[in-house]
Amino acid sequence: MNRILSTQLPEHAGQTVTLAGWVHRRRLLKSVGFLVLRDRAGLAQVVAAPPALAAFPEETVVLVTGVATVNPAAPGGVEVAGPTIVALTDPAQPPPFDLYRPELAAALPTLLDHAPVALRHPRLSALHRLSARAVAGFRQALDALDFIEIHTPKLVASATESGANVFGIDYFGRPAYLAQSPQFYKQMMVGVFERVYEVGPVFRAEPHDTVRHLAQYTSLDAELGFITDHREVMAVVRSVVAGMLDGTGVEVPAEIPAIHFADAMDLLGADEPDLAPAHERWLGEWAVREYGSELLFVTGYPMVKRPFYTHPEPGRPGYSNSFDLLFRGMEIVTGGQRLHRYGDYVSALHGQDLAPYEAYLQAFRHGMPPHGGFALGRERFVARLTGAANVRQTTLFPRDLHRLSP
Amino acid sequence: MNRILSTQLPEHAGQTVTLAGWVHRRRLLKSVGFLVLRDRAGLAQVVAAPPALAAFPEETVVLVTGVATVNPAAPGGVEVAGPTIVALTDPAQPPPFDLYRPELAAALPTLLDHAPVALRHPRLSALHRLSARAVAGFRQALDALDFIEIHTPKLVASATESGANVFGIDYFGRPAYLAQSPQFYKQMMVGVFERVYEVGPVFRAEPHDTVRHLAQYTSLDAELGFITDHREVMAVVRSVVAGMLDGTGVEVPAEIPAIHFADAMDLLGADEPDLAPAHERWLGEWAVREYGSELLFVTGYPMVKRPFYTHPEPGRPGYSNSFDLLFRGMEIVTGGQRLHRYGDYVSALHGQDLAPYEAYLQAFRHGMPPHGGFALGRERFVARLTGAANVRQTTLFPRDLHRLSP
Repeated sequence: MNRILSTQLPEHAGQTVTLAGWVHRRRLLKSVGFLVLRDRAGLAQVVAAPPALAAFPEETVVLVTGVATVNPAAPGGVEVAGPTIVALTDPAQPPPFDLYRPELAAALPTLLDHAPVALRHPRLSALHRLSARAVAGFRQALDALDFIEIHTPKLVASATESGANVFGIDYFGRPAYLAQSPQFYKQMMVGVFERVYEVGPVFRAEPHDTVRHLAQYTSLDAELGFITDHREVMAVVRSVVAGMLDGTGVEVPAEIPAIHFADAMDLLGADEPDLAPAHERWLGEWAVREYGSELLFVTGYPMVKRPFYTHPEPGRPGYSNSFDLLFRGMEIVTGGQRLHRYGDYVSALHGQDLAPYEAYLQAFRHGMPPHGGFALGRERFVARLTGAANVRQTTLFPRDLHRLSP
Repeated sequence: MNRILSTQLPEHAGQTVTLAGWVHRRRLLKSVGFLVLRDRAGLAQVVAAPPALAAFPEETVVLVTGVATVNPAAPGGVEVAGPTIVALTDPAQPPPFDLYRPELAAALPTLLDHAPVALRHPRLSALHRLSARAVAGFRQALDALDFIEIHTPKLVASATESGANVFGIDYFGRPAYLAQSPQFYKQMMVGVFERVYEVGPVFRAEPHDTVRHLAQYTSLDAELGFITDHREVMAVVRSVVAGMLDGTGVEVPAEIPAIHFADAMDLLGADEPDLAPAHERWLGEWAVREYGSELLFVTGYPMVKRPFYTHPEPGRPGYSNSFDLLFRGMEIVTGGQRLHRYGDYVSALHGQDLAPYEAYLQAFRHGMPPHGGFALGRERFVARLTGAANVRQTTLFPRDLHRLSP
C-alpha cells in the first residue's frame, strides 16, 4: 500500500500525498472540519468541509489523499488539504472511552477489559514502545558481551525451584508444571555456551492480588561462567541496565554504588534477614543523597533468604555472594554467584530427594565453572521507569488471580 | 577472571597467557602429554608431561597458565607450553559418551537424557548457535522494517483458535489453556503498532510421536497492517528469511518464485485440497530445476484448509490470499492476508458462540486495517537448514508425548 507516514508530511509540503491510519478525532466547526489521523508514527491534521467527515467516525480506518499544505497551526507545521477520504473498513463503533483525550477517562479494569482498543491511546502505546526498546537494550548489551540467546522449556516435571505457587498442568495424562523461572536451564547452558540469556514468559500462581504481582510476566535472565565472584555479574548488570535505560534520561553511573546488607542494616538501625519495602525506599533516597544515583546495589544478603544454589560469602558466615539492584528504591534485579561444585549441591540439598534434580546435578557432576547470573522482570522495570502504579499497566494483556482475558 | 579465549592464542605468541575452559581431551604418549582445552570460542592444545595431566579427567574445568608457543601442528598454529594447571572444580565424572569424537556415538534418547552434557559437543553447540543467529536475523530484518516486538499471554481462557490438542491448566480453580499461537494477539496489536512480531513458546498437546512435532516450540510470528494483499506479506517473509539465512550459504532470490496452488495441482496432476509431503518435495525439486531456488512460495491455498480468519482470493471462489513457503521441499512458513472487517468475522464464525471471541472481535468492531502475517517454527527451520532428521535435535531440551525432562 503506497502511503507516507504522518511524520513525513513536512518533507512533502506542496505535493499530493496519501496517508493511512485511524480517525483519531474529528472537530466539526461551522464552516470547516478537522480530521486528526493517527498512524504508527504519530498524528496528522486533515482539513475538509464538515459534511465530508460525517461518514468516518473515530477509529475508522481510512486512506486520505490530498495536498500537504504548510500551516504553522497544524501539528508538524503541515496539514493535508483538499482531501479524498476512503474508508478501508466499515465505520467503526465508538470505543467506550475517548482515545483522543490526553488521559483515558476510565478505571483500570475497564481499560484492561478493552485492551485491544485502550492500547491505541498514544500514552499507552508509547509506554509499550519504551518496554520493547528496553528489551532490545538488554539484548544488545549482552550480544556485545558474547552472550547467546536460548529458549528453554516452560513445561517441567517438578516444582523444584521454589516449590510454592506453581501452575499444574495435565501433560498427556501425567502431572507437569509451568516453569517459574529458567534458572536451572540457564545454569546448565553455562556449561555449553559460558554466557547465555533468555527473554521469555515465567508463570507464578500468585494467590495475592497486589499491584506488583502477575501470573505471567516476562523475565529477562542472564548467566555467565568463569567469574571470580558476584562482582563480575554486577558489572554485566550495569552494562545491561545502561542499555535498557539508554535514551530515557536516567543516568547510570560508570560504577553503580553498592552497600553490603550488613552495613545497610546498620544504617537502617534494623536487624532483620531481609529488606522490607520501606527499607528499600529509604536506601534509594540515601543513594541519591550520598552518590547522586537512582541505582544502588545491595550485596551479601543472608543465606537464609536466598535460594539453595546461592554461593556463600567467603570468610563471612551467614552472608552470601548475592545482590539486588534497587532502582528508585525498589528491587528490579536479583542475582549473585551460584554454587558450582557437585559436592556443594549435594550438601545444599541435604535431606531432599535428589531425583527431581537429576538433570540439573548432571551438569555439575560433569564439570561446571564458577558462575553467576541475574533476573530482571520487564513489567516491574518499566513500572519503575515510567512511574506506573500497577504492573498491569506495563503488560499488554495482564494475567492475575481474577483476569484471564483478553 | 583474567583469561584469553582459545582463538586469541595466535595474537599472544611468545607471551605468558591464561586460558580457562573444560578438559576436552587428553592424549598421553610415552614422554609427552596433550590436553585439549575447550572454551566458548573453540579448542586449544596444551603440552605437558603426562603425569601433570593425570589429575584432570575430561570435562573438568581448569585454568591453564603457560607460554603461547608457535607449533604449526597445533590447532591455530599456537599451543600452550610449560603450563600450570589448576582445577576450578572437583575432577569431573566421565560423560556417558566421548565429547571429543567428531560424532557423538549414542542414540538420540541417550543424548536427550544427557542433554546438559551432550550439548557441549562442538557439533551440537554449533547447531544451536546457528539457531540463535537465525532468531537474531529474524529480529534484525523486522526491526529494520519498523516492527515492534511484543510479548503476549500464554495462558488463555478458551481453546478458540484450532480447538484440538490444547494443554489444559488449573488456573486458580478454573480451566485455562496454554496458547497454541499468538495469532489473535498479534492481530489485535496491529491495531496499536501496525507492525508487530513475537518470538515465544507455543504449546501443542500433540498425541503423535513424529520427527516433526514437539509439545513446545519457539514460534517466530509477525503481522502487519495497511497491506493491499498477501503479496506484501510475502515480501516481508523474503526479507526475514534472507536475514535468517545470512551467512549460511543458502541463496535467497531477490524475489522468491511463487506458484498458485491450482497451478501446482495441475503440475502434480493431482486434485486435493492440500499438499501432501510428497507434493511438497516434488515442488521443491521443481523450483530448483525451474528457478534455481531452494525456496518456493505456494499461494492461494483452498479456503477449506485454512483457518477462519483467512482472507478469500478476490474473484476466485474457494481459494484464499494465503501462502506457504517451502524450503528444500518442506513448509517452513505459513501466512496470508486476514479478514479485517467486523462483519466478515461474524460471517466466518457463523453458528459458533461468539463469547470466547469477544476480545478479538473488539479490535475489528473498532476499526482494523487490511493486514496479514506469518509464522515460522524455529526448530523446523533449523532442521531444514542443517539437515537434522528430527526436530528434537534442534531443540535444547525437547518436550514430547513421552519426554518432560531434562
